[in-house]
Amino acid sequence: MTDFELTRRQFDLPEGMIYLNGNSLGPMPRESVPAMTRFLKDEWRTELIKGWNTKDWFMQTNTLGDRVGRLIGAPPGTTVVGDTLSIKVFQAVAAGMAMVPDRKVVLSDNGNFPTDLYIVEGLIKLRDAGYELRTPDPEDVMDNITEEVGVVMITEVDYRTGRRHDMKAIIDKAHGVGAVVVWDLAHSAGAVPVDVGGCDTDFAIGCTYKYLNGGPGAPAFIHVAPRLLETVEPFLSGWYGHEAPFAFDINYRPMAGKIERMRIGTPSIASFVLLSTALDIWDRVDMNDLHAKSVELSELLIGEIESRCPALRLVSPRDPQARGSHVSFAFEHGYACMQALIADNVIGDFRAPDVMRFGIAPLFIGRDDILAAVGKLERILKDERWKDERFQKRSLVT
Amino acid sequence: MTDFELTRRQFDLPEGMIYLNGNSLGPMPRESVPAMTRFLKDEWRTELIKGWNTKDWFMQTNTLGDRVGRLIGAPPGTTVVGDTLSIKVFQAVAAGMAMVPDRKVVLSDNGNFPTDLYIVEGLIKLRDAGYELRTPDPEDVMDNITEEVGVVMITEVDYRTGRRHDMKAIIDKAHGVGAVVVWDLAHSAGAVPVDVGGCDTDFAIGCTYKYLNGGPGAPAFIHVAPRLLETVEPFLSGWYGHEAPFAFDINYRPMAGKIERMRIGTPSIASFVLLSTALDIWDRVDMNDLHAKSVELSELLIGEIESRCPALRLVSPRDPQARGSHVSFAFEHGYACMQALIADNVIGDFRAPDVMRFGIAPLFIGRDDILAAVGKLERILKDERWKDERFQKRSLVT
Repeated sequence: MTDFELTRRQFDLPEGMIYLNGNSLGPMPRESVPAMTRFLKDEWRTELIKGWNTKDWFMQTNTLGDRVGRLIGAPPGTTVVGDTLSIKVFQAVAAGMAMVPDRKVVLSDNGNFPTDLYIVEGLIKLRDAGYELRTPDPEDVMDNITEEVGVVMITEVDYRTGRRHDMKAIIDKAHGVGAVVVWDLAHSAGAVPVDVGGCDTDFAIGCTYKYLNGGPGAPAFIHVAPRLLETVEPFLSGWYGHEAPFAFDINYRPMAGKIERMRIGTPSIASFVLLSTALDIWDRVDMNDLHAKSVELSELLIGEIESRCPALRLVSPRDPQARGSHVSFAFEHGYACMQALIADNVIGDFRAPDVMRFGIAPLFIGRDDILAAVGKLERILKDERWKDERFQKRSLVT
Repeated sequence: MTDFELTRRQFDLPEGMIYLNGNSLGPMPRESVPAMTRFLKDEWRTELIKGWNTKDWFMQTNTLGDRVGRLIGAPPGTTVVGDTLSIKVFQAVAAGMAMVPDRKVVLSDNGNFPTDLYIVEGLIKLRDAGYELRTPDPEDVMDNITEEVGVVMITEVDYRTGRRHDMKAIIDKAHGVGAVVVWDLAHSAGAVPVDVGGCDTDFAIGCTYKYLNGGPGAPAFIHVAPRLLETVEPFLSGWYGHEAPFAFDINYRPMAGKIERMRIGTPSIASFVLLSTALDIWDRVDMNDLHAKSVELSELLIGEIESRCPALRLVSPRDPQARGSHVSFAFEHGYACMQALIADNVIGDFRAPDVMRFGIAPLFIGRDDILAAVGKLERILKDERWKDERFQKRSLVT
């Protein structure tokens, strides 16, 4: 049984803050400072170049990958961390296209996180071979999985509404018509139970700075189905994925049959230190316990807001199994209202045009937080405090 | 005048170690630990998601880019940091290809760092349009710049021998035949004076973990000529390069006329903290002073080794202007000899088949270090200590 009282104490949250934005950037584990100081003093300073051997920097792509992999149901040896999610989208979709060279349609949906669509746009421009990106409404994805489609690229949990796609149904239909499937788990990893192995997805990708708490700009991950590891083309084929990275061969040979081939260039080891510290907490978490807690807290939040803040309208699915781990409400003055809430030390965020998002991360959020947050929200609405001029100004990052 | 006594004190080197490997992984600045601790406690912990605004995480790609840019002669607003060098090679060469769509030859040389060649191999495989990578001997590059060539991709300083290409001559000839030029400055930035602006290169890329001392896996950089910023295609087109990154548009529009368009995904802010701390030292360094000191120390090293260690044969160019800031010697038992030297706390490295490399980084290396290092090398050779069995075993990272 996961001990959420323990996990809560393992984070260093500012006094008095209720942080409902772990779906965007997770908070800092208490161990981050000592772990990073040890890395700097005992590894980089002391070992210098030898650290690549003596401190095993080189294989952290894989050891961290396996630890993330456990949280998404990936068998060991099928997940590596590194780069950014955008880069991993590119690698996965490019590799997928190459597996079905005669098909020119990439299917996504118009609720997908925009950067995934941008990356496919760039890839199609580069391929210059009649490819097409289709983005129907999310609810029409299943109907659009036809024999024209080469690659289906879907984000499981919608970043605005929290609506969750049916992973297994989409994979089964896509495989039935001979398409390759890429899942973006940015809002799923550490949020909901995912079984990439059991569902037999071809690729899964995601980031580690949201629910996984790896720190701002923490590395991305990529999982490749074991059946594809012999043949998958990395395309972004850097030295770190080479069969013999220190032979300095002039020709590229991807690491045979191993997930290593999806590695590209030299990764930031400092970013791995922070991710590793965060995973020390996750290593003792059961994803089913976490999800049960997430549902409990989400239901509490929805019930409280609907009864105490009737101006807000739920835009997330009402069925907890159809949601990720954030809950969104529409409110005409949502931006200013969220600014007022943030000023009151309850941190959620806002997505255009009118969506207020609340991330439920049970590792550090409890029932008391939810009740206190809704209490503050209720008072802001009653006092119409969102009308204050200082809450109207838009900042760079929303 | 650069104060090298001051810069030396700004690094935290292990007691007794002579570190001649700053060309591979630079040492840790003393300020790294307090700077990182401040970042963790006062930024990530305290500001959380707000840090993107309040601590200006978002634009560090550019502020750090400009600081690196000064060291390579790039005007402000033409350089950004992020990703890995492999990714930046891909972006630059892909963009270059698109500028001369009718030309199918990418020209490099067989002394280039292998990952650059691997990345072009992957890119060509992806383009699938009759492209060809040519890799003549380095001395034949000029003769191979013909009207067939679309992109010339060259690493200025050879990672093994330190041999330096004539940047201006190659750019002028390439532009004369209508080709686009990409310079890899991995072994140049912080090593030799470079004037990418004055030479009018199309692209320059490099890494910051070598001479720039940004830490293991520190971010890469890319410079694009100002005349190209309106039209250059990022191809790896992530949200961070979008005209309106927080509008969440469904279509990609590269940031108009700005180097921002070469940004891709969310960068590791922790890696930026380390790079920023290292650049605090570089901000007070004049590259001409640095180069003069590098030449002085390199000449001393060559003279001492040639007179005291006659078994070693210089493989770097004898003309200091034709070299980068490392010096290489061939020795049949070079691997074991370097291991013996490392065991004696003089850190250089080895590149197959027989090259012993010594990096000269004047920010923290002085005349005494050179003399002491050669003294130890001389004794190892006189005692034939390299024959010791423990120096024969090859480690993962060489």
